[in-house]
This record gives sequence, structure tokens and C-alpha cells, in this order.
Amino acid sequence: MNIQIKADEMTATERDMANALRFLSMDAVQKANSGHPGMPMGMADVAAVLFNRFIKIDPSSPDWPDRDRFVLSAGHGSMLQYAIHHLLGYADMDIEAIRNFRQLGSATAGHPEYGHALGIETTTGPLGQGIATAVGMAIAEEMLAARFGDLVDHHTYVIAGDGCLQEGISHEAIDLAGHLGLGKLIVLWDDNSISIDGATSLSTSMDQKARFTAAGWHVQAVDGHDPEAIGAAIDSARKSKKPSLIACKTVIGFGAPNKQGTHNVHGAPLGADEIAAARKHLGWAHEPFVVPASIRAAWANVAERGRQAHLNWRVRKAASGVATEFDTAIDRSLPASLASALSDFRTEHFDKKTKVATRKASQMALDVINRVVGNTVGGSADLTGSNLTQTATTASIRPGDFSGRYIHYGIREHLMAAAMNGLALHGGFIPYGGTFLVFSDYARGGIRLSALMKQCVIYVLTHDSIGLGEDGPTHQPVEHLAMLRATPNLNVFRPADIIETAECWELALQDEERPSVLALSRQDLPMLREASSRENLSARGAYLLHAPEGERDITLIATGSEVEIVREAARKLEDAGIRAVVVSMPSWEKFEAQDPTYRHAVLGGAPRIAVEAAGRLGWDRYIGETGSFIGMPGFGASGPAAQLYAHFGITAQHVADEARRLLGRK
Amino acid sequence: MNIQIKADEMTATERDMANALRFLSMDAVQKANSGHPGMPMGMADVAAVLFNRFIKIDPSSPDWPDRDRFVLSAGHGSMLQYAIHHLLGYADMDIEAIRNFRQLGSATAGHPEYGHALGIETTTGPLGQGIATAVGMAIAEEMLAARFGDLVDHHTYVIAGDGCLQEGISHEAIDLAGHLGLGKLIVLWDDNSISIDGATSLSTSMDQKARFTAAGWHVQAVDGHDPEAIGAAIDSARKSKKPSLIACKTVIGFGAPNKQGTHNVHGAPLGADEIAAARKHLGWAHEPFVVPASIRAAWANVAERGRQAHLNWRVRKAASGVATEFDTAIDRSLPASLASALSDFRTEHFDKKTKVATRKASQMALDVINRVVGNTVGGSADLTGSNLTQTATTASIRPGDFSGRYIHYGIREHLMAAAMNGLALHGGFIPYGGTFLVFSDYARGGIRLSALMKQCVIYVLTHDSIGLGEDGPTHQPVEHLAMLRATPNLNVFRPADIIETAECWELALQDEERPSVLALSRQDLPMLREASSRENLSARGAYLLHAPEGERDITLIATGSEVEIVREAARKLEDAGIRAVVVSMPSWEKFEAQDPTYRHAVLGGAPRIAVEAAGRLGWDRYIGETGSFIGMPGFGASGPAAQLYAHFGITAQHVADEARRLLGRK
Repeated sequence: MNIQIKADEMTATERDMANALRFLSMDAVQKANSGHPGMPMGMADVAAVLFNRFIKIDPSSPDWPDRDRFVLSAGHGSMLQYAIHHLLGYADMDIEAIRNFRQLGSATAGHPEYGHALGIETTTGPLGQGIATAVGMAIAEEMLAARFGDLVDHHTYVIAGDGCLQEGISHEAIDLAGHLGLGKLIVLWDDNSISIDGATSLSTSMDQKARFTAAGWHVQAVDGHDPEAIGAAIDSARKSKKPSLIACKTVIGFGAPNKQGTHNVHGAPLGADEIAAARKHLGWAHEPFVVPASIRAAWANVAERGRQAHLNWRVRKAASGVATEFDTAIDRSLPASLASALSDFRTEHFDKKTKVATRKASQMALDVINRVVGNTVGGSADLTGSNLTQTATTASIRPGDFSGRYIHYGIREHLMAAAMNGLALHGGFIPYGGTFLVFSDYARGGIRLSALMKQCVIYVLTHDSIGLGEDGPTHQPVEHLAMLRATPNLNVFRPADIIETAECWELALQDEERPSVLALSRQDLPMLREASSRENLSARGAYLLHAPEGERDITLIATGSEVEIVREAARKLEDAGIRAVVVSMPSWEKFEAQDPTYRHAVLGGAPRIAVEAAGRLGWDRYIGETGSFIGMPGFGASGPAAQLYAHFGITAQHVADEARRLLGRK
Repeated sequence: MNIQIKADEMTATERDMANALRFLSMDAVQKANSGHPGMPMGMADVAAVLFNRFIKIDPSSPDWPDRDRFVLSAGHGSMLQYAIHHLLGYADMDIEAIRNFRQLGSATAGHPEYGHALGIETTTGPLGQGIATAVGMAIAEEMLAARFGDLVDHHTYVIAGDGCLQEGISHEAIDLAGHLGLGKLIVLWDDNSISIDGATSLSTSMDQKARFTAAGWHVQAVDGHDPEAIGAAIDSARKSKKPSLIACKTVIGFGAPNKQGTHNVHGAPLGADEIAAARKHLGWAHEPFVVPASIRAAWANVAERGRQAHLNWRVRKAASGVATEFDTAIDRSLPASLASALSDFRTEHFDKKTKVATRKASQMALDVINRVVGNTVGGSADLTGSNLTQTATTASIRPGDFSGRYIHYGIREHLMAAAMNGLALHGGFIPYGGTFLVFSDYARGGIRLSALMKQCVIYVLTHDSIGLGEDGPTHQPVEHLAMLRATPNLNVFRPADIIETAECWELALQDEERPSVLALSRQDLPMLREASSRENLSARGAYLLHAPEGERDITLIATGSEVEIVREAARKLEDAGIRAVVVSMPSWEKFEAQDPTYRHAVLGGAPRIAVEAAGRLGWDRYIGETGSFIGMPGFGASGPAAQLYAHFGITAQHVADEARRLLGRK
């Protein structure tokens, strides 16, 4: 009972601050009858020290650009963050929100979700994403600091669990972070030796400290329940020029006397008896959801320190002489000159009838974009010369020099996706990055989070079909367009020529609420547009690329490199007196957003054939029950591209034959 | 010219053997005008020593079970393996095959493809897959050796590049391999400091040797052009009880005097001039595709040594007293008793009307299967208690004890998929492994290769919809069924109850040519079958679960947990005098394989509504232009499952209302 009196009437200790997190977590999980108490209880002391002594955030202004970024990579421990936010006074995190943990509509979702509650810097839960996203945030900090000096000076703190460190993406993340020397990235590892199946010794013998050292990190190990040791370690980490790992040896479920230190506290409520025992064990006599005033005051001090820091920063910014430039950089809105620059680009290449691969067209468009838009950040997962993602104005960043705007992500597609999320979330940059379309497989976990978090992240996915040729089926995407189109809130663009490529780039950049994929060809494609237009026709998703006079007999629909093929088929059919409309359909999502009248006008009432060098899944929506699909029946093969198209029957002749068959005109 | 004479008339050295690989590679890439000469040229000396002194394979019997497994993880260097196979005399790898490198129909595909050329142990190309698949092979070796003693005693050798080691999957692989102490796994790292973008120093500062040491590996470093050093290192690696990394410092494109050591030799033909210069530089005066007899003889000796080893093994096996058991284990055909055991299981639970989550039904079926089928190997990516993948007869393997048949893969979904591929490819086992359906994202790279390689690998993917509840949108799959259905050669099963779950398990086990996904519910589901049947109705892909008397008015189609909902909707409709047929559709793939008459009989001519708690993509094929889909319009949310179903309108009432609307009977 002594401890309770102390907590009520005296200045709260960091242990008291931590215990408040523990009981809010225990009680919320118990009330929800769902959730993960073990991590919040184990890491409460670390969190209390981190926030009490170091973290620079202003809960009344959660988006202040120079705040520290706090990433709960072990997202299942969401109650830790919600409890902290409650005690710091975030507007949406009153005690009712805590009491409604994991209930529909509550800010306290099962895992921390960006945009769903204030101050959540990134969505976590899928393990390893947080630490990798944090790498992107830390890169953004360095890059902004290279541009604006001491107006930008904040840390990225990550709490990561054993799961985060086992996931492969963690390797990609720590390798690049160590290479770039991201000294303001500090990872606090909840080293509790427990995972869901039991002891981590069931599945790993990794010496994590040696592993991080090998990656070029500054590594320390502390007792995660010793506030002074934790504080000293964070202090030392902040001084290091290298990214830091602090291995915090903790007891999972610390404070639950009968269950702590076992996997039984990981992902299920403790039960009323064990919570009562924890109250006794930790000397916490308060009712559920009650936190004594002295502890609330201690947490309020943290918020007040942040408010002051924010105020000081605003004064410094006002005096900096670059306030306008800074705001422009943070504001991701596009310069007005972009539209006309891209329109000029389209006019020029319409006139020249430029025939290039759409990956090359993309680079040409990017060259214009990167000159006009100052805050794009390019990159590639070690396929720069294939994805054609670097342009004249995008020098590469490198250790110690973050003035550039191009990132060699290495052979790390998953990290690239997550780091781009971090760059976008941090603010100040519009990231795009390249790999082969087929290797979107490796990046899936990050792409999904781009979509879920509504971030403008642009994936430049080249070599988008059997048209890549000899590399064979391991490199030839077949199911990937469907996989991406099935992903909610993701634009999938597959432009047919240089004009559409520029249009799709513009649409991708304009969409502040959605990531985009640009699926681009390896092989050259002719300019197909029949009339020059200031209007961005790709914005409609699909449009009549070619429409002969009179009633149409058949509609040929295609995307990307197959539009050329159906255009040629239409020519053959017209020679035979059959009027074929050609629909280019660079984006299903944009087309679905059109009104039914437009959609019907495009698709028409005549029989339809869709042609795409990919699987059929999804195309039935556009061809209807009587139409045909010509594409890939299965995996591809290794051989020259033209032979592969012939082999799989994706040819103008086959399309024309199929049209005649459908029309009964053999 | 001296060297040429020597190569022709004297015993060939390992350098000669290596140079043969180099020139076959250079000349084949040049002729194809496509491919990757740099790696084969750089690693030729290592390969020559490995094969000349150590490898135990019999080219005349490529599938001999106790052969060493050789995995070219850096699959873009395929010409290295093709050149070796040519010189070893594999039946499909004559000089014409080499001359037709990367041509359609040739055995010499762009990347090594399992099943496409003899002796290719696994398909590689997507980086990191090889090393992870090799971990599965090495586990299989240990497990078979635990069962059959010295009848099983072979190594798994991997050649991996910088790309393989940068990919996240390599972390997952080396962590588990180190933990399990896979001493017969030997990785030869082509440490050439070059990747596609340029020097590896553009994107990594990793101390790979320290990294592997941290993971519990035996680590050595050698000059990759010094045969004696290479030989000594492999010798030492074979003696280690730990998995081994040998860092082979090489010059990429070794022998091309003007281009070697740069990224220009990585992925493009050298050009005629540089090849001529290489001929001079290496003293190789032979025409393209000509290898002198002395060198051929040296390689033939390797093959002969393998043939002898195979012969000796056959003698040992014949004398072992366990030859029959061994053959049975290697033969993956199912015991005849399985069908009746599962039929009995279905009858029992039909009679009991067992209501359980399909993940629980899966475990109950697995309990039967694992008792009858001796060579299933279970596992989970640290979700054993959630996926319910372990049963009474599957003890876990652990370091030093491989007698069990359950693998704690750790929080490593990608490695799990690749390792299961390795277990299946090795032979002797039928692997299945669990994670949440949403985390198939993390395993995509491996799942795709299961399908491409036609391996019977079974993915137990639980928590298959918003029905998982409070964990929220990061854990709720929406697009994953479409992603998996779009993948060629993959069975996607989503059973509706315990009966279908047992049926789908049987179908997955029976399919020797395809991997399968079982998408299973977290929540309880009632037994829905209306009549007991010995026939496996799920084998049809879709069937009439409920058909009222008389002409149908409407067809309600659903999968998995939504079948219960449409069954209830049918009841409501019948109360209103509307005859609703209920189609349960556990597998699109199996349904598509039925004849049109059956398909039409199931789908019927009445209006159709499809219900699935996932995205719409693909369903238009079954509902047609006038039907409706009820499912998820976007990402999910955090809350109790029943509230989520109501929130998203996936309810019997909504289905019934929609049916009335379609029929104009408001």
C-alpha cells in the first residue's frame, strides 16, 4: 500500500509512469477480451524512460514536422502506444477510447493504424514493417536536414520485438541503415526471449547483437527494467553516428506474478485473477482505467516539454529565412508548371511519333517531372539501368551526403517498399522506386501498407510481361496485375505508349490518397494516339483509342504492350470489312470510377475481346459472358519475346481470327 | 598457345576445367545475345574444384536419392550449371542445347528451371530462393538420415551471390539453418563486390562473415581463384557440425581482360572483341563450343566417380534391410487407407453435426492424416496454436534431433515457403505449413515457386477474412484469395465446414502436381452438408449444397465461412416463397476443370449472387453481367467479428434483400 500512497501524493517515478501503462494495457485487453498485454507490460519501463526523458513530440500538434518519430514495430503491443497517447493527452485518446480498445469505430484499433488515431506515425502489425518504414523516415530526416540544416533535427525511435528481427525485411532494413549511417535511428529491441510458439530458442540461436554490429550498428544491451541503464543507453545511442540497437532484456508480461516470462501473456487477456494478483504484486490499488493525478502530472510534463520544443522550433523557423521553402517542401502539392510541362512532353512525342519501351518513356517523363517537382525521390532495388528510374537531376545519396534524391536500395524490394512508405509518411518527399513487376511479390507486404495507409508511393515495375523474353518464367509476371488490381486503394497503370506513360505518371503524382503501380514494358512500343489532346485521356481509365466510322462490329480491349497488337488486329479486320473499336485501358480503377454512361459508351454493345499478356482473372467483368480473352494460360517460358508472343498466341492474327469466330464470319 | 597444347594433350587441370565453363558460358551468352556471363566466369574455378573433388551426383541417374544437392541460388548464372551438366554428360545437355541457350523449347532456359532440364534441383532466379530452398533440402536430409541412418548421407551445396545475401529471405534462411545446426549445408558465396547498379559499396557495408558467424555458421574466406584454398575450405566445411559459409573472393567476369571486375560483365554479352581478348588472355585457342578431349575426360571422371558412388549406395541399400521402407518413404504416394480414414472422419462428423472453426477442423483432419501418412511434415511460422498445424503424432525437430516431423519455422513466412519447396523437392516428405492468410504476402515469392515447380506443398492459411475480428485490417485478408487464385497451377481451397475441410485436405494431398492453399476460418462454422456421401464433393470445385424442389429462382454462391450466411439467406427466401439454390464453391480451379454441362448445371440460368468476405475481383465470371456480389469493398476494420460482418453488410438479411431486389420482388 505504500507504493499507492506514493503514487498518489508524491512525485511519480518512472516506474509509476510505467505501471500506469501496464494497468491501462492489462485492463483494456481484459475488457476487450482480446489483445496483447505481454509486450506493453514488458516494455513499459523502457517506454516510460524514452518518453519521459527524450521524446520530442507535441500531442497538441501531432504533425509538427520536426517531431521525433516513434514507431511501434511490434504493433500487436498497440495498448502500449494508446496508453502513452492517453496519458499525453492526444485529443482522440480519452479514457473512453481506452475502454473501447479493439471495438468497431474506436480510435484504439487492434494494431496502430496511421490515419486512424492521432500521432500514429505508421501502421504496424505485419512484423518487421515498422523497423523498415523507420529506415525510410530516418533517410527522410537526413535528406531534409541536408536541405534545411538545423530546422530538421529529430530522431526516429523504434520498439521492435523478436518477430520483427526474425522477419527477413529486418535484414534488408538494418543492412541499408548501417550502410547509410543513419545515426538518428534508434531501435529498442524488446529482448524477452518469447514468441508465440514458446521460447525463441525453439527457432533461433541468432546473436542479434553481433548481427547488428556486423551491419555497422552501434549496439548496447541493458536490463529493460532498469530506468537508469535504459536512459544511459538511449543517451549514448543519440550520440552515436551509427544507427543504434539497444537490446532491452525484459520479462514479457512484467508484473503478472504467475504468468510473466511465458508465452501465455503474449496474446490473450490475463484474466481477472491474474490482474488482481498483478495489482497486489506491483502495489497498484487503483480501479481499472483510473490513473492517479501524480502520474498523470508526470506524463503531462512530457507533453508540455514537447509543446515548448515545438514553440522554440517555430521561432527558429520564422527566423531561418527559409520558412517558405521549408513549407513548400513539406507540402507535397505539385507545382502548377507540372501539368503544362507534361502536356508539352506529350505534344512533342505525339508529333515525333516516338517509339520507345514504356520503361524508357517513363524515364523520359521522369526527366521532365524531376526537373519541375523538387521533392521526388527515386530509387531502384538494384535495377537502375533496367527500370530506368534515375534521371539527370537525381544524384544518389550516400553515407554522409544526403543532398541527392536517388536511393540505391540494393537487392531489397521489401525494404524499398517500406522505406518509401517511411519517406512519404515522414513528409517532404514523393518517393518512387523500381524493380521488375514479377518482384512485386517480394515487396507485397510493403505495397499493401502503402495502400492501407493511403500514401502516394509510386512503384515503377518494368519488364511487365513475357515481353521481357529470355529470362523466362521466374521473371515473367502472369498473375501480378490481378494481384495488384485486387489490392484496395491502389492505382494500377499499364500504359500503352509514351503518351499514356506520361499521362499515367501525372495521375500517379496527383493522387495524394493512393499509391500507384506503373507496369512498364521492356520492349519498344509505337506511339498509338491518333489525335493530339491536352486532355489526359488515361484519367478515364479506358478510352476509345481507335473508332472507325459507323456502328462497331466488335470491341477489342487491351492494356500496355498489347494495345499495339489489337490495333493491328483492328486494321486486319477493317481490311475484311469488320469495324473494330480499339479500347486502351491503362487503369481499371480509373475506369470503374467513371459514370455508367461513359463506361457503357466505351465498352459498347458489340462482342468484346480482351487481350493482355497475363492471366484472365478479372477480365470477365469487361468481356461479359459472350466475350473472349486472349492472354496467358499459365506461366511463361524462356525465349526471345517475339517468339513467346507467337507461341502463346498473343498476336494480331489470333485476335482477328477470334473476332471473326465470335462474329460467325470465318 | 602452350596452354592450348597442354589442354589438348595432357591431363587437364582444374583451371582448364574451369576455363571450359568460362568459354561455354561466354560463347553461349554471345550467341543468344542475352544472358549473364559474369558470374559463371567468376565462379568457374570454385565450381571446378567443387565438382572435381567433392560432388556426388550420377548424371546417368539424376534422381538418385542420396546424391548431393547442388543449388545455383544465383540463378542468373545458369550457364555455369548448363556448362557443367554438358561436360558431365547429362542426357539433355548436348552441345546443341548449349548453342541454343535461352531459346524457346531448349533445355537451357534463361534461369535454371526444375523439371525443365535434368539435374536442376530447384528453380532459381528470384534471388535468395535458392539458399532458402536449400535449407529445406538440408533439413530433409537430416530427417531422412534420422530415419534411415547411413543410407542417407549427402551434402547440399549452394552457390549464392551478393543479391542472394542482400535479400531478406537469406536472413530467415541462415537464422534457422544456424539454429538447427545443418552441418551438411555448405554455401559458396560469390564475393565479387559487384551488383547490377555497380559496386556493392553503393548499397551495403555488411560484414557478411560476421553476420553468418552471428547466425551460428562456420565461416571461412578464400581466394576464389585458388583451387587449393577452395578445396581446403570445402574440406573443412564438410567436417564442420555447423552450416558453412565459404566467402570466395572472385573477380566477376574473370578472364575478360577489359571488362572483368565491373558490372558491365554482369548481365550482357561480352561482345566478340572482348571474347577474342579473353581467348588470348586465358590461352584458349578453341572455337566456340569446342572443348578439348582432355578437359572432357577430366569432367567425365567426375561423372564416373558419381556413378560408382551410386552403385556402392545401391549395394548398401540392398543389404540394409530397410530398402522397402526407404523406397516407400521416397515414393510420395499415399497409403490406400487414407481415403477410408478420411471418409470415416466425414461420416462421423456428419453424424455429430460438428461445429468448429475450419482451422480446428483442419487440425482434426490432420490428426487422422498424420497417423496414416507417415511422411507429412508440419510446421508454422510461429503461429502453431493459431494455425492448429501440430497434431499428436508430430513431434518437433530440434538441433541434434531430427526424428520429429514438425518444424517451428519462426516468424519467417518466406523461408517457410521456400524450405517447404526444398523438403518436397528433396523427396521423402509432404510438407505443410501455416500462417495467417494475410501473411501469404510475405511468402509470395516462395508460393509462386511451389506452383511453378509443381510441388505438392500445402499452405494452411488461417484467419481467412474479417472473421478474425479485432486484429483489424493489417491482419484481415481482402485481396489474397484473388492473388492466390490468379497464380497458375495453385489449388486454392476455402472449405465451408468440417466436411469440406477434410475433403479439401484429401484433394491437396492427392495432387502431386500442384501446391495447395487451404484458407481456413478462425470462427466456428456449422456442419452444412445435407446428406452424407462417400464421394468427395469438393473435388468438383463447386456443387449444390442445397437445392429446393422445383425450378430455382435464384442461385446463391459462396465459399468458406460465407456459405453459412447464404444458407441462412436461402431459408429466409424460402419463407418468402423464393426458391434459392445454394452453391458451395470451395475451389475455383477444380470447378473450372469440370465439363461445361456440369458447370452450367451448378450455376444455373437464374440470377446469381456471390458472397465472399473478400474483394470482388474474379467473381464476375460466375455472377455474369446481371448478378450481384456481396463482399468487401476495401480494407477491413478492427472490431468483433459479428459486428464487422454486420458493418460490411455480409449478412443473410442483406443477401436475401439483394435477391429480392434482383428478382424485382421488394
